Amino acid sequence: MRILVVGANGTLGKAVVAELGSRHEIIAAGRNSGEKVDISDIKSVRALFKRLGTLDAVICAAGDAHFGMLNTMTPELFDIALRSKVMGQVNLVLAGQESLSDRGSITLTSGTLGRDPILAGTSVSLANGAIDAFVRAAAIELPRGLRVNAVAPTILTESVEVYGAYMRGRRPVAAADVALAFSKSVEGAQTGQIYLVDA
Amino acid sequence: MRILVVGANGTLGKAVVAELGSRHEIIAAGRNSGEKVDISDIKSVRALFKRLGTLDAVICAAGDAHFGMLNTMTPELFDIALRSKVMGQVNLVLAGQESLSDRGSITLTSGTLGRDPILAGTSVSLANGAIDAFVRAAAIELPRGLRVNAVAPTILTESVEVYGAYMRGRRPVAAADVALAFSKSVEGAQTGQIYLVDA
Repeated sequence: MRILVVGANGTLGKAVVAELGSRHEIIAAGRNSGEKVDISDIKSVRALFKRLGTLDAVICAAGDAHFGMLNTMTPELFDIALRSKVMGQVNLVLAGQESLSDRGSITLTSGTLGRDPILAGTSVSLANGAIDAFVRAAAIELPRGLRVNAVAPTILTESVEVYGAYMRGRRPVAAADVALAFSKSVEGAQTGQIYLVDA
Repeated sequence: MRILVVGANGTLGKAVVAELGSRHEIIAAGRNSGEKVDISDIKSVRALFKRLGTLDAVICAAGDAHFGMLNTMTPELFDIALRSKVMGQVNLVLAGQESLSDRGSITLTSGTLGRDPILAGTSVSLANGAIDAFVRAAAIELPRGLRVNAVAPTILTESVEVYGAYMRGRRPVAAADVALAFSKSVEGAQTGQIYLVDA
């Protein structure tokens, strides 16, 4: 398969490339590395898909959000998650439904915070819940056997040093284990699923 | 209690006012009737709260979203739900955390489409999932015993004539029954709950 990995240079993206790279053609994309794309701008996404030609799968391991206590949050700070983590990923589906090969798949990233919140995580939880619900809804509409799933990981082992203090009491999972859920989505046949990866 | 009902003139809002009006002071608000407010604009929300003085509860029975098949949806059409149904309701919490009386409550409206999607409902499902996850996250941060819940109804009996064709196979619930869930939220003591009202 020809698989586009958006956010390929991130902690999760690298693990996804390591998992799938040995048996598929990977096209790495990101804001600043590989094929350049700004997922918050659907024109940028459409231009990328046009440039790349036929794709069998799209994986998104990208998406920004602001962490901040609710009493410091503003509509503008929520907008970071809405533009990037929510609409950035929705844009990949909107553009992908036209251009992916038949029975192709799109796999997004949400996270456990949608159901298991932490302090300072309201906009991240909101985005995760939005993506999970969108995936369930989009799956019943996609044409030509196209599929869409989301992977919802807890904190990555590789991120404990930076984010561990905000997520006490969660057993971290290795990015390589989360990458297996992306393999399950891309190389399996399910659609409309949220693959929770929680240790 | 002094209870603000946003969207008080809508099908659901009227039932909420009927349920709570006999034992509480209701302040009706809406885009075009009662106390005027544009929930998509936090300045409008803050101005309303300032004008009204102390409130013990806020209920939102308002929020727009566009219904359309995924292959006709655009980022701009998703934005209708993001601005109104998502951020409009988030704005009530952002402003409410400062101005509600101690142990006051905010009750939002999501819906069953977040977990049980229909054709043409991707932006509504997304908004419902966003609100449900936001409520769970905001509940653990609110100060002074403030509470936040969401009511997630299926199709209303009163709306079958207009929307029934899009939601076949769902047993409708009367708006008066959905209003009970708002009573449970406002007059009870729970927080972070999603009250599913599905027949």
